[in-house]
Amino acid sequence: MDSRPIGIFDSGIGGVSVLKEIQRLLPREDIVYLGDIARTPYGTKSASLIKRYSEEALNFLAKKDVKLVVVACNTASSVAIPQLKERFPDIIDVIEPAVTKAVRVTKSKKVGVIGTKRTIESGVYQKRLLESDPEIEVITAICPLFVPLVEEGWLSHSITRDVAREYLSPLKGEVDTLILGCTHYPFIFQIIKEVTSDGVEIVTSSEATASVCQQYLKEKNMLSHEGGRILFCTTDEPGCFIEIASSFLQIDIDRVERVEL
Amino acid sequence: MDSRPIGIFDSGIGGVSVLKEIQRLLPREDIVYLGDIARTPYGTKSASLIKRYSEEALNFLAKKDVKLVVVACNTASSVAIPQLKERFPDIIDVIEPAVTKAVRVTKSKKVGVIGTKRTIESGVYQKRLLESDPEIEVITAICPLFVPLVEEGWLSHSITRDVAREYLSPLKGEVDTLILGCTHYPFIFQIIKEVTSDGVEIVTSSEATASVCQQYLKEKNMLSHEGGRILFCTTDEPGCFIEIASSFLQIDIDRVERVEL
Repeated sequence: MDSRPIGIFDSGIGGVSVLKEIQRLLPREDIVYLGDIARTPYGTKSASLIKRYSEEALNFLAKKDVKLVVVACNTASSVAIPQLKERFPDIIDVIEPAVTKAVRVTKSKKVGVIGTKRTIESGVYQKRLLESDPEIEVITAICPLFVPLVEEGWLSHSITRDVAREYLSPLKGEVDTLILGCTHYPFIFQIIKEVTSDGVEIVTSSEATASVCQQYLKEKNMLSHEGGRILFCTTDEPGCFIEIASSFLQIDIDRVERVEL
Repeated sequence: MDSRPIGIFDSGIGGVSVLKEIQRLLPREDIVYLGDIARTPYGTKSASLIKRYSEEALNFLAKKDVKLVVVACNTASSVAIPQLKERFPDIIDVIEPAVTKAVRVTKSKKVGVIGTKRTIESGVYQKRLLESDPEIEVITAICPLFVPLVEEGWLSHSITRDVAREYLSPLKGEVDTLILGCTHYPFIFQIIKEVTSDGVEIVTSSEATASVCQQYLKEKNMLSHEGGRILFCTTDEPGCFIEIASSFLQIDIDRVERVEL
């Protein structure tokens, strides 16, 4: 047993979708959630900058004495993981779990991946899917407006549907499995499901990551049986972070600590 | 005569719309343009953070020995100007020039202002318009998706038109003058013009600011007659900054300096 908290970080609100799944599977774990909202979004920034920001986030969580770090940001996961693992070995990213699940569920071996510019251009999903199964054909689409649409709160707006139709049209009828390669996207899961062909299996990194997290702690005998608190930390005044996170998690968030990285 | 450069800063690409107008009016001035793209956008961040970022940008330009600083970002102009002026008196913001022009052109005394969340919520346009003419009625609208739509390059896309229609509907038929209170918005000037009622005068801060800039240098006898170079500096790898800025300015940008603030 290990009662130290799990650390989760993201550039902003998106990682809350991972937090939600971890909390559902592991309700007795304490969690420290760090949202680097002062510098959000990461998805449009350069790899070198994302590496620096991710390292600062990791150092912050390490100081909070976490037992495991979940990099709940696809952009950070796609460019910074090898370097972060050197510094702190107990790390789970959001890419590997989604890839493993997609490889398991696809029948046609045609897998779609959507994400931010930086994530898709890094080629990390394409590379990992092909490493897992060289016969898989990967079709990707960059969806830069999904993040601001989620942050605008237009979760079921007709314009969000139109944007989704435009972005997802190259994948339509082409894949039987679709990875949501950005932790913001589960917030608009319903719309993505609607505009995708019937029968396409949608893999969210949040769900896949939470079950990898559970398995990891179990194998290392690091599960906790006595916690359940969440500490939210943000690098800017939380503003509408509290509102969106409370409504998505369906809990009251009474306190967010503002921190410097 | 003063041959030192003019310094312009913005959180990203938007300020290039101000640069374009300054260059058109003052083609013999050297210009240092700083885009803080590592931390863009400012419009969703807290006032205290924007003040800190703006001060760092100002310090950078001061070290470049500029004769005048143009804060080509409405968000920074709306929260940081008094504090920046203490440090560096030769400053022009983008708000005052647009307000002055709007007060001059409105006949119905009903003026619309659109901008980012932070700019509109700061109340600075409302306050300054009323100080200039207490009879003016101000109607505002927050347009958070315009910035990412511009950065996505959807400058004449039907979805941008739909978003504009939705955002601008509360102003429709209500105002005879509309201030574009964000330097990104001139990039979608045509769409904004289309969805606004006929006869509405659109005031862009870029044009108004450039003429204030010209007047200021003239009065202080600080005009240059021998320059014309532009130095672009960004706080992250320039990426698509060069592409969007070149196409908007219709010039070749061969070099962008990456800097730390």
